[in-house]
Amino acid sequence: MRFTSEQRLEDGVLERAFTLGEISGILWTPGSASAPAPLMLLGHPGGLHRMYPRLAARARHCAAQGFAAATIELPGSGDRPRSAAAEEARADLHRALEAGEPVGEGIVDRLVLPLVDQAAPEWRAALDALLTLPEIGGPVGYSGGIIAIGIRLAVVEPRISAALLFAGSFVPRATFEEARRVTIPLLVLLQWDDEGNDRQLALNVFDAFGSQEKTLHANTGGHTGVPEFEGDAANLFFARHLK
Amino acid sequence: MRFTSEQRLEDGVLERAFTLGEISGILWTPGSASAPAPLMLLGHPGGLHRMYPRLAARARHCAAQGFAAATIELPGSGDRPRSAAAEEARADLHRALEAGEPVGEGIVDRLVLPLVDQAAPEWRAALDALLTLPEIGGPVGYSGGIIAIGIRLAVVEPRISAALLFAGSFVPRATFEEARRVTIPLLVLLQWDDEGNDRQLALNVFDAFGSQEKTLHANTGGHTGVPEFEGDAANLFFARHLK
Repeated sequence: MRFTSEQRLEDGVLERAFTLGEISGILWTPGSASAPAPLMLLGHPGGLHRMYPRLAARARHCAAQGFAAATIELPGSGDRPRSAAAEEARADLHRALEAGEPVGEGIVDRLVLPLVDQAAPEWRAALDALLTLPEIGGPVGYSGGIIAIGIRLAVVEPRISAALLFAGSFVPRATFEEARRVTIPLLVLLQWDDEGNDRQLALNVFDAFGSQEKTLHANTGGHTGVPEFEGDAANLFFARHLK
Repeated sequence: MRFTSEQRLEDGVLERAFTLGEISGILWTPGSASAPAPLMLLGHPGGLHRMYPRLAARARHCAAQGFAAATIELPGSGDRPRSAAAEEARADLHRALEAGEPVGEGIVDRLVLPLVDQAAPEWRAALDALLTLPEIGGPVGYSGGIIAIGIRLAVVEPRISAALLFAGSFVPRATFEEARRVTIPLLVLLQWDDEGNDRQLALNVFDAFGSQEKTLHANTGGHTGVPEFEGDAANLFFARHLK
């Protein structure tokens, strides 16, 4: 991991851009940390530059709670090379959506599964690197982004203690089966009126999770309408599990 | 409204028993209230004496937030006269449950609807009386108990600004229709593994509510297993709407 730039944000949070091999990432650490901080991995749909304002806001929210936060670019997004197969799957997806056709399992599998297979080891490598920093101590939480990536990480990465998952993206059948193997505490957000999202599938995924503590927060509104107060709810959730 | 006894609880909360005509009730007010307090109406399944420990705990939780809390006995519970029709419906219900048969709509209607019709005006009368006290100012919230009563009150009582409803009891079809007319902010609790509760019906009721702000919190566990952290979530919800 190599830091490439740093800036101090208004509220004292230190923001550092880094690269991990070919992958770019951002680390935010609280201004006033006395002890090594817990770490939140911030998931997103891909495109760090485009997502930056929202990611920085979430990171500052974490820092206010005493947590460091970090994120990395997803495969095939931002400045990373595209995969022909993923681009083709994405084109098929848009064709189906524009034609008002149901999105077939084949498209979802081709779009999501290779992404998960590639992204999960990258996030784990980032975690390896981040946890060597003296200012970061753990425990580690994961929050948001593509739910299939969150589920994979929750299953394979024992250093993640709790996860907030956003049930708002396509779930391959294989991911659904993986959900049964998740056992860490979960907070699952669902936008009740998210037109592009299959509500019943989201409820089935919630049902499938093997976790003893799992909570679903469903709110009125569309995909991007998660109410601000869910930020406070997330704080309560992670305060219970990362301290 | 006539106060019949009072005691000061350990944390300074003043607990007063009262009667409103034939109906007994309890009022809790914060020890250190400087201004007239918002009021929380504490719903319950009937039987003030049996429910007292849980009600008192919820009331102290309210008081810690600066809210007064009050509750009254339900028709046909505690020291109040039984209705022959309600007792018969209850016996039919238990017979159906013991036989493992589905509980028919007729039984639910006979059990719940007369209770709602009688209880709702009583809670409104209690509210009339409570709001004349100088130490209580409003706004008013409603929390818990039999969901059909909460829904009726949310529809007919404009002084109730926000409600927490527990989707864990029988919902007559007429109540389901009433749910569409609820417009106040709602927090709905659902125990995901509540064996005696129809999960799909609960989700349908949540879907039916007409409120622009409605949030469902579904948690693992059975009917009585609502996690303690939902107390904090309720605090956040009511702090947003009753202050």
